[in-house]
Amino acid sequence: MKYINTLREGENIREIYFCKNCQSAVTKNGKEYLRVTVGDKTGNLDGMIWDPSDGGIENFEKNDYIEIAAEVRNFNGALQLNIKRVRKLRDGEYDPAEYMPVSRYTIDEMFAELMGYIGEINEPHLQRLLLDLFENDRAFVSEFKKSSAAKSVHHGFMGGLLEHTLAVTRMCRFLADSYIYLNRDLLVCAAICHDIGKVKELTAFPENDYSDSGQLIGHIVLGYEMVSQLGAKQEDFPPKLLRELLHCILAHHGELEFGSPKKPALAEAIALSFADNTDAKLETMREAQENTAVMENGWLGFNKYLDSNIRKTSQPEE
Amino acid sequence: MKYINTLREGENIREIYFCKNCQSAVTKNGKEYLRVTVGDKTGNLDGMIWDPSDGGIENFEKNDYIEIAAEVRNFNGALQLNIKRVRKLRDGEYDPAEYMPVSRYTIDEMFAELMGYIGEINEPHLQRLLLDLFENDRAFVSEFKKSSAAKSVHHGFMGGLLEHTLAVTRMCRFLADSYIYLNRDLLVCAAICHDIGKVKELTAFPENDYSDSGQLIGHIVLGYEMVSQLGAKQEDFPPKLLRELLHCILAHHGELEFGSPKKPALAEAIALSFADNTDAKLETMREAQENTAVMENGWLGFNKYLDSNIRKTSQPEE
Amino acid sequence: MKYINTLREGENIREIYFCKNCQSAVTKNGKEYLRVTVGDKTGNLDGMIWDPSDGGIENFEKNDYIEIAAEVRNFNGALQLNIKRVRKLRDGEYDPAEYMPVSRYTIDEMFAELMGYIGEINEPHLQRLLLDLFENDRAFVSEFKKSSAAKSVHHGFMGGLLEHTLAVTRMCRFLADSYIYLNRDLLVCAAICHDIGKVKELTAFPENDYSDSGQLIGHIVLGYEMVSQLGAKQEDFPPKLLRELLHCILAHHGELEFGSPKKPALAEAIALSFADNTDAKLETMREAQENTAVMENGWLGFNKYLDSNIRKTSQPEE
Amino acid sequence: MKYINTLREGENIREIYFCKNCQSAVTKNGKEYLRVTVGDKTGNLDGMIWDPSDGGIENFEKNDYIEIAAEVRNFNGALQLNIKRVRKLRDGEYDPAEYMPVSRYTIDEMFAELMGYIGEINEPHLQRLLLDLFENDRAFVSEFKKSSAAKSVHHGFMGGLLEHTLAVTRMCRFLADSYIYLNRDLLVCAAICHDIGKVKELTAFPENDYSDSGQLIGHIVLGYEMVSQLGAKQEDFPPKLLRELLHCILAHHGELEFGSPKKPALAEAIALSFADNTDAKLETMREAQENTAVMENGWLGFNKYLDSNIRKTSQPEE
Amino acid sequence: MKYINTLREGENIREIYFCKNCQSAVTKNGKEYLRVTVGDKTGNLDGMIWDPSDGGIENFEKNDYIEIAAEVRNFNGALQLNIKRVRKLRDGEYDPAEYMPVSRYTIDEMFAELMGYIGEINEPHLQRLLLDLFENDRAFVSEFKKSSAAKSVHHGFMGGLLEHTLAVTRMCRFLADSYIYLNRDLLVCAAICHDIGKVKELTAFPENDYSDSGQLIGHIVLGYEMVSQLGAKQEDFPPKLLRELLHCILAHHGELEFGSPKKPALAEAIALSFADNTDAKLETMREAQENTAVMENGWLGFNKYLDSNIRKTSQPEE
Amino acid sequence: MKYINTLREGENIREIYFCKNCQSAVTKNGKEYLRVTVGDKTGNLDGMIWDPSDGGIENFEKNDYIEIAAEVRNFNGALQLNIKRVRKLRDGEYDPAEYMPVSRYTIDEMFAELMGYIGEINEPHLQRLLLDLFENDRAFVSEFKKSSAAKSVHHGFMGGLLEHTLAVTRMCRFLADSYIYLNRDLLVCAAICHDIGKVKELTAFPENDYSDSGQLIGHIVLGYEMVSQLGAKQEDFPPKLLRELLHCILAHHGELEFGSPKKPALAEAIALSFADNTDAKLETMREAQENTAVMENGWLGFNKYLDSNIRKTSQPEE
Repeated sequence: MKYINTLREGENIREIYFCKNCQSAVTKNGKEYLRVTVGDKTGNLDGMIWDPSDGGIENFEKNDYIEIAAEVRNFNGALQLNIKRVRKLRDGEYDPAEYMPVSRYTIDEMFAELMGYIGEINEPHLQRLLLDLFENDRAFVSEFKKSSAAKSVHHGFMGGLLEHTLAVTRMCRFLADSYIYLNRDLLVCAAICHDIGKVKELTAFPENDYSDSGQLIGHIVLGYEMVSQLGAKQEDFPPKLLRELLHCILAHHGELEFGSPKKPALAEAIALSFADNTDAKLETMREAQENTAVMENGWLGFNKYLDSNIRKTSQPEE
Repeated sequence: MKYINTLREGENIREIYFCKNCQSAVTKNGKEYLRVTVGDKTGNLDGMIWDPSDGGIENFEKNDYIEIAAEVRNFNGALQLNIKRVRKLRDGEYDPAEYMPVSRYTIDEMFAELMGYIGEINEPHLQRLLLDLFENDRAFVSEFKKSSAAKSVHHGFMGGLLEHTLAVTRMCRFLADSYIYLNRDLLVCAAICHDIGKVKELTAFPENDYSDSGQLIGHIVLGYEMVSQLGAKQEDFPPKLLRELLHCILAHHGELEFGSPKKPALAEAIALSFADNTDAKLETMREAQENTAVMENGWLGFNKYLDSNIRKTSQPEE
Repeated sequence: MKYINTLREGENIREIYFCKNCQSAVTKNGKEYLRVTVGDKTGNLDGMIWDPSDGGIENFEKNDYIEIAAEVRNFNGALQLNIKRVRKLRDGEYDPAEYMPVSRYTIDEMFAELMGYIGEINEPHLQRLLLDLFENDRAFVSEFKKSSAAKSVHHGFMGGLLEHTLAVTRMCRFLADSYIYLNRDLLVCAAICHDIGKVKELTAFPENDYSDSGQLIGHIVLGYEMVSQLGAKQEDFPPKLLRELLHCILAHHGELEFGSPKKPALAEAIALSFADNTDAKLETMREAQENTAVMENGWLGFNKYLDSNIRKTSQPEE
Repeated sequence: MKYINTLREGENIREIYFCKNCQSAVTKNGKEYLRVTVGDKTGNLDGMIWDPSDGGIENFEKNDYIEIAAEVRNFNGALQLNIKRVRKLRDGEYDPAEYMPVSRYTIDEMFAELMGYIGEINEPHLQRLLLDLFENDRAFVSEFKKSSAAKSVHHGFMGGLLEHTLAVTRMCRFLADSYIYLNRDLLVCAAICHDIGKVKELTAFPENDYSDSGQLIGHIVLGYEMVSQLGAKQEDFPPKLLRELLHCILAHHGELEFGSPKKPALAEAIALSFADNTDAKLETMREAQENTAVMENGWLGFNKYLDSNIRKTSQPEE
Repeated sequence: MKYINTLREGENIREIYFCKNCQSAVTKNGKEYLRVTVGDKTGNLDGMIWDPSDGGIENFEKNDYIEIAAEVRNFNGALQLNIKRVRKLRDGEYDPAEYMPVSRYTIDEMFAELMGYIGEINEPHLQRLLLDLFENDRAFVSEFKKSSAAKSVHHGFMGGLLEHTLAVTRMCRFLADSYIYLNRDLLVCAAICHDIGKVKELTAFPENDYSDSGQLIGHIVLGYEMVSQLGAKQEDFPPKLLRELLHCILAHHGELEFGSPKKPALAEAIALSFADNTDAKLETMREAQENTAVMENGWLGFNKYLDSNIRKTSQPEE
Repeated sequence: MKYINTLREGENIREIYFCKNCQSAVTKNGKEYLRVTVGDKTGNLDGMIWDPSDGGIENFEKNDYIEIAAEVRNFNGALQLNIKRVRKLRDGEYDPAEYMPVSRYTIDEMFAELMGYIGEINEPHLQRLLLDLFENDRAFVSEFKKSSAAKSVHHGFMGGLLEHTLAVTRMCRFLADSYIYLNRDLLVCAAICHDIGKVKELTAFPENDYSDSGQLIGHIVLGYEMVSQLGAKQEDFPPKLLRELLHCILAHHGELEFGSPKKPALAEAIALSFADNTDAKLETMREAQENTAVMENGWLGFNKYLDSNIRKTSQPEE
């Protein structure tokens, strides 16, 4: 496949790209044409379809995968596609991973590890609640595996939600080992479902944007409600334990001003909020080091989320 | 009835009071006795039962209403009851309004007015949701009518939740009249149910304290969940409208740092949060003027909730 | 009239516009020309006068209304006027409402309503103070009717100050009805004159920008001083009442960090600050819905003044 | 004079004290008596007048100076006066400096220095404005000389306002010498009148408490208004210069949250706000060192106004 | 040993306690006596030595260990010691652990574990720096082992600094395993020495209070300087690596307002600040659960450091 | 010399400029060329070297001073240099003051004044410490004299650090005269060395950017360490006095959130922090007035560092 960041002026290509945008426009002469933006995981490029009624141009819309035949041209110093033919693709004719950012890790391996942690839980109601969701709710599992953990900031890629959930869960297991007064089953269970509301907060890839629910309600309360309903399914779920689990979810951002309607009141809620924050910040730093151009002196500039100028650490051999 | 703030040293009384506390203790000589605190709406008084095993002392506990025979004595400069007899009362033998703070308004009249506003709502799903709760759920209605709107601060009395709900609803109706782009039915419905979570956040009178749910989850999310479940009962409830109603509830504190997990994103959520805040502050001021000793110069001192020194305004005739 | 947002390349026009800017410049060949920006209520457009000494070009300056003859041309992808003739207009030759944003409501009707509220005030000193200003001070009334309530943000149009004042006054009358311990005359009087300092803070339209007084002193203190002087004119004005009125004006922004030198200490000051804030926010939301392009999903993006992402509420029929 | 902090049990005294409080009470036997608090600059003491109708007890009130004959007794471990005779004094019969905290410096010398700085001002309008106040307004001068600069915090003593004004003026003269782009006359004039509103904000000694104006309006706006009126008396006062002077007064607290309705926008306003703050903090530190018990390790504990633990610096010889 | 919290009125005791305070006073009759406060790890008790010149009263001072013979009396409802004899003890005659709070863990075992982590470090300069301190500097090691990590708040006991250091180091090792882009040696080294400045910030037990250095400089900069000097001892220490280590120490409080002069700019500094904060908060919660009386409903009240109401989590069997 | 802001299209020049940047690039045809940015104190200009291998193009790098022969051309509306010849210069062939911003004052005169203040110090250890640095450490003195006090903001020019240090020292001397309880020698010494860490925080001109140490450690702690080492050189330096000096340096930003790890606890630290802040703000205002275009109404727009709209004050003659 010819990635967008390798195209050169003058080339004629036939490639599959993802259509990020498509708008109708009119030339000064009153002729209709289409402005299109296509993309792959390496970037985006604008293109023009000057004759949309041409038989070689199939109907397609924003968010479709399309195969195009086009010439790469230079317009006012920027490359542009002059698109001659468009074919709309069906699922299976393309590999989404070429078009969307994806996790470095294998999704199924990560999920298997997560299921292993569910298997370790001794408290039967907590384990049953998790199994009802992660084993029996196929629709949820399918969305959960593909979801990102954010629109941008950190873990903004397919599998990002699973990768983040796993990292937080591992850290909570470590904390339960270290601080033995913690209720391990409660903490691990809370870690596993702390961000499940994100499957509703964000739309699926390739869009990966805030849904109406996401903006009006938010993943904290959406996740609270999902867990509350799962708890209600078990008639004998100890009500105090369920409240504690729900509190951990509500309080996992740690501070009211970060969107938690309650500050952590239980040790497990404190532990979870630190694990969540630690993974978020360390992954943000990792992504910044990967994606940001390093300045001469090793500094990466100001990172808004970390609220600091940041730099790569020297490596042992340096 | 002889109110506690009128008792004088040397009196012998037979009166009904509410038992606020009751603890067993041991004298230096190893004899068991009971320390009791009784109260009515005018104040509290400590008392001693030196011979708990006496036949005239019925079994009773904290939060019981008891009829006592006692002598009022002076101990180290403070009045104290020497309790000779105790009879535990049953519901109906006393008038709770003598023991708890109550609204200045008649609860049934306030409730009737509220039901009138529900009757005005045109959007059928919103009206049905409110009727399911305020007409059909007798247990809820019974609690709602008696609940306060706070442990202290403002509206901390029986009927306070209803009185506050009514004031906010009236103000939202006024705003809907004034700003015609507002969705009147949505706004009035949100006003009526914005604080229903408080019936779960606070325990019933006479305790009127935060429940475990209240502290771990809070009335905002508890109310959200109640409305969400009521909405789910109507299969054809327009999902977008339900989300908007739920958002108004979540956002009604106006700011994240005041415990709303989302800032108001809809005009109705903004209107509701102002109506809620305006009533809270003006009622706080009213109660402060009623309860606080006025200093020589008319000032009432610093009010923590209003974050200002406050003073009574001069009256027209002054 | 041909509005600026309807002009097309190639047209020859003869229209009246408002001159927003006019600067002399020199071509590379050393020839003087004029760069002009003209505007109407639909937008602005740049233009060139290549021969300023031509007899058809009358003398004019920034902030004049001018009638121009010009050709609409395309320069580097943007439209531009090639101006051949300019005639400077006198008052009366144009309709300012075509060039400035104006209130949706009739100014005289709004003013009559406001005068009605002054008529309702029973306390004679307060009423006399208002009449001295709104009835007897013609210069003030003329400025007040035309003034905006802000440079931008909300009510940034002619009549905006009157429209805002009226909305706040109506809300304060409602609050005085609802909270009967409020001093109604004081509150309504304070509402009517809370923002009068804005006639000095902002320059008149078409400029509508902060004056030197506005930036150095601000409308809160300017309004305070105006009311203080009006009060001093009445020898028998009760001093305590005058202080209370002045306090309401000083405290109407509610918080020190919003520019009030005192926090509200009186119930009426609290009520006024909420009425002011509620109208400001609900009008901001209304204007945002009118002026902002709605995104696919109904959201309007982040609104800085409301400090939130905002969206239009679904309408009853949706 | 026998100071209150030197009285011993068993003494019989005849001394002049200031009456800080006087309240009527009733014994258990129904007999009326008076509870009195008297004070001097070393402290306060409670006393009882058991027979108020005795001919030796003249009528007197709170805030009177009284000569008393009394026995010093021990009641429950604390000293108390048993007052037998009371004579109410007239002005001149006592030395207020024995009863109120006073400046370490001679008031007339300080005032003469201040007048010298007024004499240095070259700009005629500014100088005339200051002379109108500090030379021609005898009532003001009399109050100004006796006023404190605060109820407590710093400079809370007679002459404190003058002492603080002088310190700020000296520092502003230094700054005008150092930063020659500053408008020296404007800055010195602003320094001299920056706090004149305090003569209205605080009541006179011995009360020295916030007045109604002080709480509702505050010294910043009160001072603004005094200067504005003084400026208006000079018909030819340059309006821009007057606005600048008024701005310096409004902005002299430096930040909105400290009660200035405007942030400093002029260099002179910045200079004044620093001079004001520097003197306030250094005087607070001086008073803390004088009045606070030094702990073993030299530390003085936490100072709320300085928001820090503070300690005395070691002296050169240490 | 008879602990202070077990003493009863009327007992005659001969026990060793720690003298927390000792002050000379004078009775009304002019006779000198001593007011003493003695303590052990269960609490404090006041005592009187009415005849300090008695031969049975050896010279002693605050912070001495003393053996006393005394009678336990009741004075105004509180127990008090009437001390007859005092003998000042020498080191070795008492067990400090009976008088000071100590870690639950064995200090030598903890220290051995810490040395093990130093042994794991591969980077030779970092390891040598740690060995210079933790192996070769006997005076430091002796202080480090006994020091607390705080005056109060959390880890305020002997061995607390070591216990906290160990917990942070373990967590950093876990993070280095989980986020492989972290420089493990740098992170573990920084963890081990992040709080070494506390041996200078706090005085030794039994005082355990802030030193003059502690208050004026603080443990962050004191620790920075210690590490900087250790680094300077190795001529070939890579300067960039040393700066990174020093940065981790400076930034380990995570935010400027918590006393770090720099925000974390390196991934290791972020990791360390989270590990430090997580241990501090989880240990605070543990101590609160151990030391605070649980209210009826399981809640422990408001915890200032955690800035939240807190409660014990229900245990698995509940 | 022909300054960059005077160059016109079409000129052929031979001038010495400072090379701010130099990057290799490739044309579409695959030919290598150099993009260069040159500057002097009046501004920067981009240039192209189309034939880098030409014999007339000597080797040079970023931060070199170069003499160029070039033609001034217009490219897309902006001037650009077409560079034909480049000669790299040696120190002495150019006058740095033409290329870097420099202080208005003579560096040697400023330094002499500073040395005079050192000469006035009576406390021998403090004076010796300063002489060790400002007299005996030639390398430091050379850097100190040339350093700026900031990358931008204020005093961002050669000699800026010295100019700022001098202004702060003068103000501290004034404060020591005014507040006689201050330890004058300590305060003046602290003023002189409060910012010496900036010689390490910022790289030398022409770069004048944050060094790695500057970003990771910061000038406050770097300066602390320098003074601490100087103090350690004097065996008999009174330790308490040294701690006080070091505290003044650490606390000179006044607030934790401005990067001081400790709040001022000593009067001298308070005095120094005000002097530092006052000079910083007044110099910022001076530079803003010099560098910012004044708007029609005299206003200079919003200044981020002063956090306010600012304006020039009217001058006496206005």
